[in-house]
Amino acid sequence: MKAFVMKEIGKVGFTDKPIPQPGPVDAVVRTTSGLICTSDTHTVSGGMGPKEKNLTLGHEAVGVVHEVGSEVRDFRPGDRVLVGAITPDWGSAAAQNGYPSQSGGPLNGFKFANIKDGIFAEYFHVNEADANLAKIPDSISDDVAVYCADMFSTGFMGAEHGNIPVGGTVAVLAQGPVGMMATVGARLRGAGLVIGIESVPRRQEIARTYGADEIVDFTKEDVVERVLELTRGEGVDTAIEALGADSTFQTAVKITKPGGTISNIGYFWEGEFVHIPRVEWGVGMADKTIATGLCPGGRLRMERLLRLLENHRVDPTHMTTHRFSFDEMERAFEVADKKLEDVIKVLITF
Amino acid sequence: MKAFVMKEIGKVGFTDKPIPQPGPVDAVVRTTSGLICTSDTHTVSGGMGPKEKNLTLGHEAVGVVHEVGSEVRDFRPGDRVLVGAITPDWGSAAAQNGYPSQSGGPLNGFKFANIKDGIFAEYFHVNEADANLAKIPDSISDDVAVYCADMFSTGFMGAEHGNIPVGGTVAVLAQGPVGMMATVGARLRGAGLVIGIESVPRRQEIARTYGADEIVDFTKEDVVERVLELTRGEGVDTAIEALGADSTFQTAVKITKPGGTISNIGYFWEGEFVHIPRVEWGVGMADKTIATGLCPGGRLRMERLLRLLENHRVDPTHMTTHRFSFDEMERAFEVADKKLEDVIKVLITF
Amino acid sequence: MKAFVMKEIGKVGFTDKPIPQPGPVDAVVRTTSGLICTSDTHTVSGGMGPKEKNLTLGHEAVGVVHEVGSEVRDFRPGDRVLVGAITPDWGSAAAQNGYPSQSGGPLNGFKFANIKDGIFAEYFHVNEADANLAKIPDSISDDVAVYCADMFSTGFMGAEHGNIPVGGTVAVLAQGPVGMMATVGARLRGAGLVIGIESVPRRQEIARTYGADEIVDFTKEDVVERVLELTRGEGVDTAIEALGADSTFQTAVKITKPGGTISNIGYFWEGEFVHIPRVEWGVGMADKTIATGLCPGGRLRMERLLRLLENHRVDPTHMTTHRFSFDEMERAFEVADKKLEDVIKVLITF
Amino acid sequence: MKAFVMKEIGKVGFTDKPIPQPGPVDAVVRTTSGLICTSDTHTVSGGMGPKEKNLTLGHEAVGVVHEVGSEVRDFRPGDRVLVGAITPDWGSAAAQNGYPSQSGGPLNGFKFANIKDGIFAEYFHVNEADANLAKIPDSISDDVAVYCADMFSTGFMGAEHGNIPVGGTVAVLAQGPVGMMATVGARLRGAGLVIGIESVPRRQEIARTYGADEIVDFTKEDVVERVLELTRGEGVDTAIEALGADSTFQTAVKITKPGGTISNIGYFWEGEFVHIPRVEWGVGMADKTIATGLCPGGRLRMERLLRLLENHRVDPTHMTTHRFSFDEMERAFEVADKKLEDVIKVLITF
Repeated sequence: MKAFVMKEIGKVGFTDKPIPQPGPVDAVVRTTSGLICTSDTHTVSGGMGPKEKNLTLGHEAVGVVHEVGSEVRDFRPGDRVLVGAITPDWGSAAAQNGYPSQSGGPLNGFKFANIKDGIFAEYFHVNEADANLAKIPDSISDDVAVYCADMFSTGFMGAEHGNIPVGGTVAVLAQGPVGMMATVGARLRGAGLVIGIESVPRRQEIARTYGADEIVDFTKEDVVERVLELTRGEGVDTAIEALGADSTFQTAVKITKPGGTISNIGYFWEGEFVHIPRVEWGVGMADKTIATGLCPGGRLRMERLLRLLENHRVDPTHMTTHRFSFDEMERAFEVADKKLEDVIKVLITF
Repeated sequence: MKAFVMKEIGKVGFTDKPIPQPGPVDAVVRTTSGLICTSDTHTVSGGMGPKEKNLTLGHEAVGVVHEVGSEVRDFRPGDRVLVGAITPDWGSAAAQNGYPSQSGGPLNGFKFANIKDGIFAEYFHVNEADANLAKIPDSISDDVAVYCADMFSTGFMGAEHGNIPVGGTVAVLAQGPVGMMATVGARLRGAGLVIGIESVPRRQEIARTYGADEIVDFTKEDVVERVLELTRGEGVDTAIEALGADSTFQTAVKITKPGGTISNIGYFWEGEFVHIPRVEWGVGMADKTIATGLCPGGRLRMERLLRLLENHRVDPTHMTTHRFSFDEMERAFEVADKKLEDVIKVLITF
Repeated sequence: MKAFVMKEIGKVGFTDKPIPQPGPVDAVVRTTSGLICTSDTHTVSGGMGPKEKNLTLGHEAVGVVHEVGSEVRDFRPGDRVLVGAITPDWGSAAAQNGYPSQSGGPLNGFKFANIKDGIFAEYFHVNEADANLAKIPDSISDDVAVYCADMFSTGFMGAEHGNIPVGGTVAVLAQGPVGMMATVGARLRGAGLVIGIESVPRRQEIARTYGADEIVDFTKEDVVERVLELTRGEGVDTAIEALGADSTFQTAVKITKPGGTISNIGYFWEGEFVHIPRVEWGVGMADKTIATGLCPGGRLRMERLLRLLENHRVDPTHMTTHRFSFDEMERAFEVADKKLEDVIKVLITF
Repeated sequence: MKAFVMKEIGKVGFTDKPIPQPGPVDAVVRTTSGLICTSDTHTVSGGMGPKEKNLTLGHEAVGVVHEVGSEVRDFRPGDRVLVGAITPDWGSAAAQNGYPSQSGGPLNGFKFANIKDGIFAEYFHVNEADANLAKIPDSISDDVAVYCADMFSTGFMGAEHGNIPVGGTVAVLAQGPVGMMATVGARLRGAGLVIGIESVPRRQEIARTYGADEIVDFTKEDVVERVLELTRGEGVDTAIEALGADSTFQTAVKITKPGGTISNIGYFWEGEFVHIPRVEWGVGMADKTIATGLCPGGRLRMERLLRLLENHRVDPTHMTTHRFSFDEMERAFEVADKKLEDVIKVLITF
């Protein structure tokens, strides 16, 4: 089968691989739609550490079950399925502890394109199929469902970890696709004021569509000052850091009120340290909690996210700025990697 | 001043009382708008226990500050203010424990028309003014803001106590005004499916406007069966009991999945016992939590609820089916008490 | 192999069965120590519903791994292991939702002697071995480790679900073995006052050993009155109901303060309803939460409980009032069933 | 009256001040016992920012009520009382939000020797007396009760914020008095393994008395390596940082497992930034939560801590290495400031 892989740091392309085989509790899925993620481009640039040679890229996909292992009970070949970007080992100590994304070690619930082949191939392998696949209702198309895998799950987690009170105030730092979904997430948790921090006009506009009540453009005004002004000098209940950059993280700490939460959903991919501004953190005593996490996966999560689509809570297609067929992956990847043409998300169809 | 009081069990009417005086940390407010609540009618019918003779009725109000005590710092005569139905003693043990509505004894944060005069008078007294009043933004009219006092606060609490997962399933039992606001609350917390249980057509219709995805009419179908059907046999994550009746409570326990929450916001006003169906409760071992509470009050809560209005999250006016002037209180009370003319909420203007 | 089974309702005895075979992710364990549980006797009396004919009894055991399936990675024949009484399916929806004991349906994480053969046999089968077994450190003997399986896990859960504040007040209703471990659990969570409710002198004495500061004998004084007296009229922060009887449950609701938690760990085995006393429950508005649950199982839980033994936090042997060999099971069961000779726990050695 | 004050940065001494007067809801207390805290010495060195000239030092005290305001209901002159180091404004937005220590601004619940005169004087003023004083039971002496004010409350908070599972693993970084009480706190929350990080032999010894199962001496071994070894390579569930130093904070992040909590109780008094080690923090995605807080105050908290003393849960007197009379404050302060004679805590009697 055809697979789109990282040949070496900085170099991507197609290669040929055998169709994977399922173990007794696993499945193999034939890919129908996929999305390119910023972390794919970070992987290729080497920002996510050394990877196996010729590792297939991609972790956001839907498809059709091709084959299942002998012990799989709930899925059969032909089922249309969604797969979370994270596919935990559900029996692991970390999962038993409530943190399935950390199963088998830090971040190791993240398997696709990280510790095994990803989804940019004609077929891909899914561990613990009964626990990691979800059937897609007929009313939801592949191109919509695929947003659940990572964008919804990660973005909404930012809001869920943020301990948002009903009617509370939330700032979302950066309105890339994950930040946009954190904006939706803040609305889903009942925020009374959602402030999007963003400078790119197209992203500002989509952020408003997704529920940002106010936009703060950091190229035009001081973010800390403006957020304090919007919150009567108090700071926000919750700051969602959706970029993974030291400077936005510092801003997030500064704009959060005592007793508030900084909820991180960005991947910090460089630097030895992330810096907490000591004084604005209340010298470690202002009850400002810093929460982190990695995209929740699993069948239950995916079923809940699909339910939001079924009942029209959110329309992810505003993010689909580009569409390519799998044959055009090289150009598609270039668009995503170089952030050409005001790209938000690149959808790949198979 | 003129006050509308319970003269004795079953009998209401106007009387004359002196304008109240504020203590050092208190305020006196001139009433501008109020709402009649089902609990006012329960009070009058004797369902809420014996009350002081000629107790002024009502606990949902907005107004204008008339006078403040010497120690009040943040409010001045002339300020337009919202007052929560519950006005806790914030220094009490219960408030320090995180349950301000229970300050001074069970439910004793509830003072208006319960342990002191209520708000259906030209003026009313507010304890701990800095902590229990909230300024109303100019963009919000009195007739809208008044819904925060009890309807929003109680209804949304039903959802907040229900531990609703994003994309989760929620049933709200009874779509009276508090149930409608629990429906809104379920949406505010990110429910993926909200099922309203209700038989009155007008209420069904408003419930849909407020976000019920499905309506189950208990006069036409078996509620337990239908809810299980709508949730693939699992039951809901959260059942919000918004009536305070033994039979709906039992249904709530039955339709909740193991690991789910029954969140009560109804006032159970009769019977020696409320009955938990033993088997469907999982013989006390199915991780079905029963949560209860009383309308959160206080300035912070009110400010957060006002923010939801400011940013157009919910329009309470669909509930205002009747309007009367304060002079017409007797007729107004009759309409509410006897549930005439498909009444939902009766608004009183002063 | 020899197995001790329920032949029919009310009748127990030995029978012969084949040694079970493990599936690919399972294990078979050779039993070395077991404990008889009250729920075994309830099962035999029919109180836990109809069971398969000749079902092997028992769910509290330690042993030595006899055989493992092809996919088991962390255990090998010869390993000394502890098995939780509850052995969840870790990939199930309920487990992903945080309630593994409910996997596959209400209480269905409870498999031994419930939906498959139990542990009173020379060998028994364990599903998902890597997730449900735990190695026993050399410093801990079988006869001690076996208390983790159910007694520790259930009893401590009573405290964990009770939301006990450091220095808070706790009442534990009934000081049977699970109540005793709830008493230990209350101490483990930092309770400042632990009140044991019990009338049997021997149980009172052991309860004191396990950390009860006060004992209230319901045959000699009014429990509600006495608990209020011990808590300055406030009621307890947490009442742990460890009997599963309607009357103690009602007492638990009455002695809990507004904002407190009633945490149930008893199996309610009769009656159509469990009764909540309406007024003392605060008419459904006093913020009194009723929490329930079923003995947490799984490797991580068992490892944590073993750590408490390793570091001498609790000595379960005060509960071992009787010891029998497996050959003497019939007499052993009679002692447990009829509560002869002031029995607390009956230990069976193989 | 005589008061021990900071005359200027680096200079302390006695001065004369008038006895304070209570407002309507306040009290004035005659001091009987006090403790010197490290933060007193930080204040004097300028580490806690500029202070009013001649500010009375000290925030850990017990005494006898001297005078109460007109609205105080529960306390009378002559009552023996404990006062938390933090005396919140209970009606403030921060307190209503659940963070009373932040009332009136970050850390502003901390009033003594911070924003008003402290307790090293013959008399001191207490705001909101009914909410911030607690009566001391006869069985507890002043010299013991005084440890509740800050040492218990702060130390135990470290454990409470740490989300410690029963049987979980905890490391406490630095065994000064607050770290020792965090060690006790870890035991009070049911930790199965408590590791104290400390190099001073006397402190190591007292830490063992207070419940440290293992001691790691950072001058003799690599802390990260050793803690991983003690936890089978996993890291701890909870790391309590009790020093307020950048390097121990970094260690805390490194030794915490994915899904674990770093709970800070140290005052970070220098540097522009506190550094999170990026990779060991899981690049912001390992579910490692960083929690902070400031010593909980208030009557309920103090009553709960006193209950722990009443029922013999902890003996704080192992920390009392030095005793002086108030007249000897200058020498007492020098011992504490310069950490002479292996000092742990210096008790002052009046």
